[in-house]
Amino acid sequence: MFPDARILDVDLTHQVVKVKILPGEIYRRYPGGSALGLYLMLQYMPPGIDPLSPENLLVFSVSPLTGLPISGQSRVVITTKSPLTGAIGDSQAGGFFPAHFKANGWDAVVFRGKSEGPVYLYIDGENVTLRSAEHLWGKVTGEVETLIKEEIGNQGLEIAQIGPAGENLVRFACVINHCNRANGRTGTGAVMGSKNLKAVVVKPAKPRSPASKEGFSSLNKNVVARLRENQAVTGLGQYGTAGDLDGFNEIGFLPTKNWRTGFFPEGADNISGSTMAETILTGRDTCYACAVRCKRVVEVSGRVDPLYGGPEYETAAALGSYCGVTSLETVALANQLCNMYGLDTISCGGTLSFAMECYETGLIDQTTTDGMELNFGNQEVVPRLIEMIAKREGFGNLLAEGSARAAEKIGGGAKDFSMTVKGQELPAHMPQFKPSVGLIYAVNPFGADHQSSEHDPFLVTDPESQERRWLAQLGVWKGYQDTYALDDEKVRFAFDTQCYFSIVDTLGLCQFVWGPSWELYGPTDMVDLCKYGVGWETSLFELMRIGERRINMMRYFNAREGFARAHDTLPERIFKPLPDGHSRGIALDRDQFAEALTTYYQFAGWDIETGNPTDVTLRKLSLAWLLELA
Amino acid sequence: MFPDARILDVDLTHQVVKVKILPGEIYRRYPGGSALGLYLMLQYMPPGIDPLSPENLLVFSVSPLTGLPISGQSRVVITTKSPLTGAIGDSQAGGFFPAHFKANGWDAVVFRGKSEGPVYLYIDGENVTLRSAEHLWGKVTGEVETLIKEEIGNQGLEIAQIGPAGENLVRFACVINHCNRANGRTGTGAVMGSKNLKAVVVKPAKPRSPASKEGFSSLNKNVVARLRENQAVTGLGQYGTAGDLDGFNEIGFLPTKNWRTGFFPEGADNISGSTMAETILTGRDTCYACAVRCKRVVEVSGRVDPLYGGPEYETAAALGSYCGVTSLETVALANQLCNMYGLDTISCGGTLSFAMECYETGLIDQTTTDGMELNFGNQEVVPRLIEMIAKREGFGNLLAEGSARAAEKIGGGAKDFSMTVKGQELPAHMPQFKPSVGLIYAVNPFGADHQSSEHDPFLVTDPESQERRWLAQLGVWKGYQDTYALDDEKVRFAFDTQCYFSIVDTLGLCQFVWGPSWELYGPTDMVDLCKYGVGWETSLFELMRIGERRINMMRYFNAREGFARAHDTLPERIFKPLPDGHSRGIALDRDQFAEALTTYYQFAGWDIETGNPTDVTLRKLSLAWLLELA
Repeated sequence: MFPDARILDVDLTHQVVKVKILPGEIYRRYPGGSALGLYLMLQYMPPGIDPLSPENLLVFSVSPLTGLPISGQSRVVITTKSPLTGAIGDSQAGGFFPAHFKANGWDAVVFRGKSEGPVYLYIDGENVTLRSAEHLWGKVTGEVETLIKEEIGNQGLEIAQIGPAGENLVRFACVINHCNRANGRTGTGAVMGSKNLKAVVVKPAKPRSPASKEGFSSLNKNVVARLRENQAVTGLGQYGTAGDLDGFNEIGFLPTKNWRTGFFPEGADNISGSTMAETILTGRDTCYACAVRCKRVVEVSGRVDPLYGGPEYETAAALGSYCGVTSLETVALANQLCNMYGLDTISCGGTLSFAMECYETGLIDQTTTDGMELNFGNQEVVPRLIEMIAKREGFGNLLAEGSARAAEKIGGGAKDFSMTVKGQELPAHMPQFKPSVGLIYAVNPFGADHQSSEHDPFLVTDPESQERRWLAQLGVWKGYQDTYALDDEKVRFAFDTQCYFSIVDTLGLCQFVWGPSWELYGPTDMVDLCKYGVGWETSLFELMRIGERRINMMRYFNAREGFARAHDTLPERIFKPLPDGHSRGIALDRDQFAEALTTYYQFAGWDIETGNPTDVTLRKLSLAWLLELA
Repeated sequence: MFPDARILDVDLTHQVVKVKILPGEIYRRYPGGSALGLYLMLQYMPPGIDPLSPENLLVFSVSPLTGLPISGQSRVVITTKSPLTGAIGDSQAGGFFPAHFKANGWDAVVFRGKSEGPVYLYIDGENVTLRSAEHLWGKVTGEVETLIKEEIGNQGLEIAQIGPAGENLVRFACVINHCNRANGRTGTGAVMGSKNLKAVVVKPAKPRSPASKEGFSSLNKNVVARLRENQAVTGLGQYGTAGDLDGFNEIGFLPTKNWRTGFFPEGADNISGSTMAETILTGRDTCYACAVRCKRVVEVSGRVDPLYGGPEYETAAALGSYCGVTSLETVALANQLCNMYGLDTISCGGTLSFAMECYETGLIDQTTTDGMELNFGNQEVVPRLIEMIAKREGFGNLLAEGSARAAEKIGGGAKDFSMTVKGQELPAHMPQFKPSVGLIYAVNPFGADHQSSEHDPFLVTDPESQERRWLAQLGVWKGYQDTYALDDEKVRFAFDTQCYFSIVDTLGLCQFVWGPSWELYGPTDMVDLCKYGVGWETSLFELMRIGERRINMMRYFNAREGFARAHDTLPERIFKPLPDGHSRGIALDRDQFAEALTTYYQFAGWDIETGNPTDVTLRKLSLAWLLELA
């Protein structure tokens, strides 16, 4: 009943494309996303290789649900060994590329080796070819889109590509599709660059039909009804993800000036989603078949091109408040440059703000910064530095390594200014305010990530709300009313919702549609989606176990690479009281955090000394084959 | 959204009936059956008390689903500390009593203390009264039914009662409702007897309506369609549970002559369900609102009264093949006597066959047996001994203690003939053939039980079968094809299906309707039943965790009573090769079993030395309050 996975295996060294079939019986255990990616990587790749060497694998994968005619299903995951963290790399993006990739008949593509010269992969159903990308190398994403569409003669092509940042092996280079959707995190773009792979191009394909039209239609009706009444999602459509930015500032939890404070009174209103909606917003964009339309389209005549989309919350914070930037236009331009050059906006902003703090504290000066004054709030230097990073020019070459590596080179306490976990810069949610998110930042196998668990639903006190009712289906029923608690209940909340988000990610679903807090689709709807979409009669029990399996595979991957408990921590600053605003005096309690970390390991079935999955846990999750491989 | 539990608290010592409300928020974690019973017992009862003392609690409980108009939902669970095992006691029965108990507005009744004289509890909606049972004491179940119905003037009353066996504190006395449905196991009837509680009587009440008529109707339609095509269930209706008996004999796995062999050529055909259908069967009975109609009605003019129902598979084996009895009439009569006197047929048969082996091997002789010749196959002694046990007359007084205690008194190796786990006699499924059932026999907190997990689906090789598809929803997808294996996959199969059956039992659902092997209703149907039945929007994830929670509460209860790994074992005989028939030479491998036991503990999160839930496991299952109570 479960479909086989059809996998493209691309040997870039020998320019050979093969088709591999993973039987449905196995695919069902790793049904898409990085679960599938990890299954392939752990099978084929030994530990200890250099992420930027030809030995690294790079997997694009979707899921059996990708491209079905319903909101929030067009997501592609890239899995690889991360050049930023040295741990497992995992990054997700929406758009139209994922739906068309799947509609062409493919579930994953594995890239191995390294091409002698630049190439791109062109997928036209069963015709899959490697083509020269010599003429595209060095070009920004918008130019490449135009050139490939002209070359192939099809304006509907969907293109996932690296920009110059990926070519130049910037450790936080990303993969961009549609010029404005990013597989942003963990430096997957650098791995593409290291393989001389410029792009993956898919021809638009015939839309998929669900297994049950009737069931599907009822699922779609539900969401249309919920959308109408739903203020959260209406707000998301109206203001984008940056709609929350000024609210976070008001309560004092908007990471500002490299996280020295959570309070950004001079700039929060300027760079918020509501200001964007009133000023530079010219349209709303969406992903394949999605009714939410959360994507921003912005324009500043002669300066910001609508092609590259508008800033998300994370981007507005990282390139805005992190750096003290108060100009929305600057934030929009910085966002555009990241999408042109192919840089992760979060790591980019986190690295820039790190550099600014080094500068302000005198750890570096203009002799290091090529003469630039890197004070917080210096609007001019941000766009300039982004280009320098992407091109690895001058001081940009140091920052292209990310803040953690840069801190090591700078020395003298710079380490304290690198707001990273496992070398990856923190997204803009403050663990001081959302302790369970802090815990997940610390334990998440691919570095700090804000989309790997439900955030403490601190605002949801109504037990009859849809969010609370859905969380109850996950067995979460108590204890999370207390924002600052990090007790057993909160740890279980973190772990169980992490497993839930893990299956959401595995199935390539969008968390803005399928995460409980948005109150559009809930856990049982996901079970129905599998049934009506592809005839997969599953249960939330099976799905949660898959989610848990994926997390354990990631941890196992990391354990092979030498990661241990010491890597599951947060920057020192998080444990120190915030200085001002409404959050003044608040810190994450260090002992409470350490205790919660132990509890988390225990609940997860991991060794409390090392943080690695025990053999028993692997066996319980049908992962004994990993032990046999070892 | 989850209903509160309305609980009757009956202090028999002071003859006071109180009403207690358990808020829905808590009830949702222990939603019925022995989960609710255990919640109450662990809150109120200290460890170490004598099961037959007034300090023991006795809980009757149903679930929010009980009495809804659908097949397989009318089950009542009795929870108490077992006088047979000294561990947690848990026993379930069907009939009409459970539906009407719930329809009267109650979810549970807790009995505490001891009445000075015999009483019964009469429930008429909000009017709940204790009444004298002086005139009923000493009477068999059929007489009591008649007397109470006359006394109250209502022929529709549903009565759960003990017979003389319970009054006489026979350690495997049961509770009988409708004269032919038994809360059979773990000696709950003796606890009722020790409290001078003769019966619980409920007035017929208005049928319940489901929360969603439409959803409910579609669930009912599904099962009607499945019933028609379903050979297993058609066979169950046609031949009863004893329909499998001759088949088990053919493959050599029908426990015979106190489990010395699995082969009963001289008697299996005689006592099988098909022979019953061709001879003494006069009708089929059912439980409230159930379409399956598996219950037998048999009659032998002047000897076997249809009032007491016909033998189930377990009964036919325990009182038939265990004892070498080849006469169906004798089996039917023995079954009737057990239902009249209130004795568990399994423990009764197991104790009789134990005594026969002691006799045949010369450990006891006619001086001990009151002159009876206790050879296997002696048809005459079986009915006579049942009465003697119930009345604790002569040799019956020794056997009334169960085979484990009797073996201690007899000495001289009699222990090897007591086919028990934790002092409870084995049901008629041979671990040599169903190793995962053997594992569950060993670990099950209330002694050997055949309804606490899915049996190895050895006959189901078609991956597209409904059973396999439903098991896949539980994450069981491989490995169980191998009947004799007891590897990781089989242990997980055992544990996960145990958790599933644990929630089925918690919700008071019938395993012949809601167990995957019958292919009537599956896991997701159960989720739908909760939603359409009572508006409880749950998931299989939440339900499985509740099932796991119940098992852990039981194990925790037992740990308090001193139970440990040494109690989780099987009789020696199981590890020795079977002598004849198709099973000749087959044994459960001792090392494999020990290894599987360790694996089971590990998967369950229990200490491998003691078999007790670790503190971490309790905390993960929201049972930290147990640690605080301790």
